[in-house]
Amino acid sequence: MAATPATPAADEAYDVIVLGAGPTGENLADRAHAAGLSAVIVESELVGGECSYWACMPSKALLRPVTARSDARRVPGLRDAAEGPLDAPAVLTHRDAVAAHWKDDGQVRWLDSAGIDLVRGHGRLAGPRRVVVDGERTLTARHAVAVCTGSRPVLPPVPGLAEARPWTSRAATSSQAVPGHLVVVGGGVVGVEMATAWRALGAVVTLLVRGDGLLPRMEPFAGHLVAAALTEAGVDLRTGVEVREVRREIPGGPVTVVLDTEDEIVADELLIATGRAPRTADIGLETIGLEPGSWFDVDDSCRVTGVTGGWLYGVGDVNHRALLTHQGKYQARIAGAAIAARARGVPILESDPWGAHAATADTRAVPQVVFSDPEAASVGLTAAAAERAGHRFQVVDQDLGAIAGASLYADGYRGRARMVVDLDREVLLGATFVGPGVGELLHSATVAVAGEVPIERLWHAVPAYPTISEVWLRLLETYRG
Amino acid sequence: MAATPATPAADEAYDVIVLGAGPTGENLADRAHAAGLSAVIVESELVGGECSYWACMPSKALLRPVTARSDARRVPGLRDAAEGPLDAPAVLTHRDAVAAHWKDDGQVRWLDSAGIDLVRGHGRLAGPRRVVVDGERTLTARHAVAVCTGSRPVLPPVPGLAEARPWTSRAATSSQAVPGHLVVVGGGVVGVEMATAWRALGAVVTLLVRGDGLLPRMEPFAGHLVAAALTEAGVDLRTGVEVREVRREIPGGPVTVVLDTEDEIVADELLIATGRAPRTADIGLETIGLEPGSWFDVDDSCRVTGVTGGWLYGVGDVNHRALLTHQGKYQARIAGAAIAARARGVPILESDPWGAHAATADTRAVPQVVFSDPEAASVGLTAAAAERAGHRFQVVDQDLGAIAGASLYADGYRGRARMVVDLDREVLLGATFVGPGVGELLHSATVAVAGEVPIERLWHAVPAYPTISEVWLRLLETYRG
Repeated sequence: MAATPATPAADEAYDVIVLGAGPTGENLADRAHAAGLSAVIVESELVGGECSYWACMPSKALLRPVTARSDARRVPGLRDAAEGPLDAPAVLTHRDAVAAHWKDDGQVRWLDSAGIDLVRGHGRLAGPRRVVVDGERTLTARHAVAVCTGSRPVLPPVPGLAEARPWTSRAATSSQAVPGHLVVVGGGVVGVEMATAWRALGAVVTLLVRGDGLLPRMEPFAGHLVAAALTEAGVDLRTGVEVREVRREIPGGPVTVVLDTEDEIVADELLIATGRAPRTADIGLETIGLEPGSWFDVDDSCRVTGVTGGWLYGVGDVNHRALLTHQGKYQARIAGAAIAARARGVPILESDPWGAHAATADTRAVPQVVFSDPEAASVGLTAAAAERAGHRFQVVDQDLGAIAGASLYADGYRGRARMVVDLDREVLLGATFVGPGVGELLHSATVAVAGEVPIERLWHAVPAYPTISEVWLRLLETYRG
Repeated sequence: MAATPATPAADEAYDVIVLGAGPTGENLADRAHAAGLSAVIVESELVGGECSYWACMPSKALLRPVTARSDARRVPGLRDAAEGPLDAPAVLTHRDAVAAHWKDDGQVRWLDSAGIDLVRGHGRLAGPRRVVVDGERTLTARHAVAVCTGSRPVLPPVPGLAEARPWTSRAATSSQAVPGHLVVVGGGVVGVEMATAWRALGAVVTLLVRGDGLLPRMEPFAGHLVAAALTEAGVDLRTGVEVREVRREIPGGPVTVVLDTEDEIVADELLIATGRAPRTADIGLETIGLEPGSWFDVDDSCRVTGVTGGWLYGVGDVNHRALLTHQGKYQARIAGAAIAARARGVPILESDPWGAHAATADTRAVPQVVFSDPEAASVGLTAAAAERAGHRFQVVDQDLGAIAGASLYADGYRGRARMVVDLDREVLLGATFVGPGVGELLHSATVAVAGEVPIERLWHAVPAYPTISEVWLRLLETYRG
């Protein structure tokens, strides 16, 4: 482990103190250190954070075999071979390895090699630029404190729910056994992905959604296509329902979910995936005049607004700009550069869009891939968001099944693509792709949106034939009429 | 079929005459017609061309099950199920369907619906703006004749080779049976893809290459990775060898391939994939003072240079700019727009880079995906090509196996990525990705290269985590040091 003195002296001073060793905190510390600043990370759990152990990595380890099997089933010559069920123990064992068996030795070695100090324990602010760890050790920051503590799942106030000890994302990604019957509450990314994975691993899955569809932040066809596929896979999807009560008499025993329709579902496990809250309740925000448990209000360099001296940054989930690992890492790169520039006294303009110190992509070009089957991938604004933002825009849709590369990728390919074009500037505001194998296709749209590449120039970006990417050509042809 | 008069009058006049109904000819006629010009296509074989029946489509139908099987083998939970051999009859039957059973009814219907006339027969130029079909029917062009006849495989002058009636790309993509032992000569795209497909379908495959590696037009690591994988798959790859003689005594019987090393290989079939020639030998070029059998010399609008009146266009393979279906279609869109503009008397500047009438991507941003296992995908300049072109550039490499998204895509992922950066303009000159699942990733680089997106802006194009696309982040981090 990096320099953690056995006998701390008085206050230990660093240029930058980072609370939270998830990918956001790691990247921020790395950037600061690379710019010549000393950096320390305070972490009370595992170095590597939610993403490495209870989110992106284990969930994708559970999901990748599902899509690989579906892909194999959709081509000739392999269908019979891929008919059997997934070998759940093999998948879970592999997932354990991907999650590094919930040990952070590798990540600690990386911190060490990167020259970043690590202090294990719970860090709380104790006035400006000061962090106390476990009430014992005091760190002071010459330039900045960056809060990168992320977010946590929230249980809705349903009678009996907390007492039933339901799964949240952590248990859902790390369970060592396949539940016989799993009830999932929530139709967002976590709900959809976990319903997909556990169904394929053999569970009976009931998916309960309050709204009228899945993936409500994406274009509506994303939710429609994913819902159809989940239903075909045997998931019992119920929309427009609310959970009124939950009962679990025996710990570890069956759980009864009572709906507002009076229906009762008895299952082995219950996953709640309905929302998240910032992990800022117990980090001493009250000592600097901020409200504990609130999301941070930050500028485009991720500096918390209204803090005298401008030494506090809120980076990643805590600022509620975009609750995604890659976006937290992006903010960390931007904020790290801003902290370093300010430390050197270099004037920066965090309001300069697309400059080195503004996380402009947070509002213009956030990509997301839902690793369901089919995959759903989007970047930038949906049509609804473009409408809300007051853009003059045009929506162009394309059936992906009509693309030669898609029909070769999978027999009977079903999918859809949409681009949203800014009619005033003739650039893309957003794009959405839903279908098998579209995950890697998304980045082409991310480059186009973030790069503000004019439509006329995209006409010269030729997609290789026959790939699914040829959807670009059809979208552009339709737009140009 | 579209308006093909039963009793032709004297000369039939069209605004645009297209020779060749492959994707290039179809797209050019479509563009011209969409611009209000009358268009006719002359075709002596199947409407849809090489791509639909004997190249892209059937070859990818053969190859997709290979990669789907490999992908399934590389994840836990499916390995056993995917161990068996491919069901060759199922794959070949599906391939037949993808090739529309070598019938062009569907494509003819499309021409009809698009308002494009079709004349079946062999078209030859008979002086300026005039085409005679099968010596019987004369068409005249008010504005342009576009030659889109494509290219054909060439047999090298090896004693006994022509008499042995070897496979070329047509037979290799349309064979109804799996040969017991197939010798492939040529390490380019066709050789690599067909060795991959027929090996996976059960053939013993020997791959003979004159040079020292495969895929010589790509970055060297592409050939290295593909060669290693083919060898692992059981292909007998021999580099640095030449075929000195070929013998096949009985038609359809075994074929003996004699190498310059004195080795003799006895096989069931021999595929020659060593080069292509333009299909311009028998189209009447001599009647307008051009050399039959030559590649066309064209400007950036694909207009043939040195032809009085500027009415002749050479589009697609015939101009030797980039022998790829998608690039031919791109040229067709550009040339079609140029023909239409000139017909309206609108001045155009075909030398305006990235304008509507210049096929600039042909020289700056040609994408290609080799559907081998691993896939090899590239766009723009390789390091060697950048060197030859005199750019001041930097090469940035990244091991794809170190990318989280790649390691989740396939256990033990092996792959590599390279970007070539123009140091004077700080934009990408080219990029190459080799590994499983990179085919759809390529278009992100194509947008970056064709869009000339500055490196500083690419920094804001955030790849979704955990996808293989995250290689972009590592490449950019390395470049920025």
